[in-house]
Amino acid sequence: MPLHRIYHTPGQFSTEEKKGLANAITELYTTNPHGPHLPPFYVVVLFVPVEEENFFVGGKNTKNFVRISIQHIARSFETHDIAKGYIQLYENALAPFIKEKGFDWEIDIEQIDRNLWRTNGLIPPLSNSDAEKEWVRVNKAVPY
Amino acid sequence: MPLHRIYHTPGQFSTEEKKGLANAITELYTTNPHGPHLPPFYVVVLFVPVEEENFFVGGKNTKNFVRISIQHIARSFETHDIAKGYIQLYENALAPFIKEKGFDWEIDIEQIDRNLWRTNGLIPPLSNSDAEKEWVRVNKAVPY
Amino acid sequence: MPLHRIYHTPGQFSTEEKKGLANAITELYTTNPHGPHLPPFYVVVLFVPVEEENFFVGGKNTKNFVRISIQHIARSFETHDIAKGYIQLYENALAPFIKEKGFDWEIDIEQIDRNLWRTNGLIPPLSNSDAEKEWVRVNKAVPY
Repeated sequence: MPLHRIYHTPGQFSTEEKKGLANAITELYTTNPHGPHLPPFYVVVLFVPVEEENFFVGGKNTKNFVRISIQHIARSFETHDIAKGYIQLYENALAPFIKEKGFDWEIDIEQIDRNLWRTNGLIPPLSNSDAEKEWVRVNKAVPY
Repeated sequence: MPLHRIYHTPGQFSTEEKKGLANAITELYTTNPHGPHLPPFYVVVLFVPVEEENFFVGGKNTKNFVRISIQHIARSFETHDIAKGYIQLYENALAPFIKEKGFDWEIDIEQIDRNLWRTNGLIPPLSNSDAEKEWVRVNKAVPY
Repeated sequence: MPLHRIYHTPGQFSTEEKKGLANAITELYTTNPHGPHLPPFYVVVLFVPVEEENFFVGGKNTKNFVRISIQHIARSFETHDIAKGYIQLYENALAPFIKEKGFDWEIDIEQIDRNLWRTNGLIPPLSNSDAEKEWVRVNKAVPY
């Protein structure tokens, strides 16, 4: 459900850094005590390399920028304060891989109606339901 | 108007399977008796290959997953039941190319304001209007 | 903040045309007297080449189509008339690179909640605030 598309230029992240960043994002949604404890397989992170000549910021080609476009579906933020806290955790997770390497970056989150969402053809269980907890436990979409 | 971005790993679909899947999706919006009978050219399907090392599900690289991100613009679902029925048709169209090949998959639909949409610079005609029917007939955007 | 993803087939745009199109879009948000005068670095334009065999319009492969998916975050349209005027300016900016080359094209704009947006980890300043004007002046995200 959270879908993270990370647009970057080729070579900006090593294979190890991509693993590290994907893990840092995934943990935020799964094991982090302040997170939503989602089934791990809900978290999809895609690195999309864009050649420098195709990547424009302010009308100029760049190889130094990371643009992350995020979709949330399984949960919506209930208040602006909750959103603010969560985004801070997210920024902390990114920092070693982006800020501390001297890159510029931008993120945004769009929230999608969970009624228009399926995983392996199933309607995902309600937030914090017993069925969702079972999906966390087995880490796959099983009939319920 | 429906825009389908299909994120997959290279080699997951043959050229013939891509044609088959794109056709199955397109028919749902055009010729299917339960569908909206849109002009065929409204239906855009993009296969976006993502290398296995760039494709993470639950923090792990995978070559077995298909993530489909869908935008609807020309029509919005009027009720949850209508959405549910339509998504079932959509899942049926995907099945031979995804489920029956043993892949895991996830889909979501976002609904976009049709006032913020143009095709060939034109404001697309209203749903089920005579002008839309003419666009269906000629299968292109013509002044009306 | 405006994020423009331009899906096209390889070879549809030369390097110079990509620069020209990215500049025409960027100017609309920055220097155009009818535009919002955003900090230039807010404007991200990504060209995403999609092979002809992966690009389907109406169920048929094409190398002649351009699909632009746009996100607005820093500003929302206040009325339908304002949106209409702005989209016309946008279409004018595209025309020399798309319409006049004989391509077909489609655009849509989705509007994202600016509370769910960060740039370089900072909450971007309010529309037309002094802080935003400072970001325009220095053309980067600075604490305020």
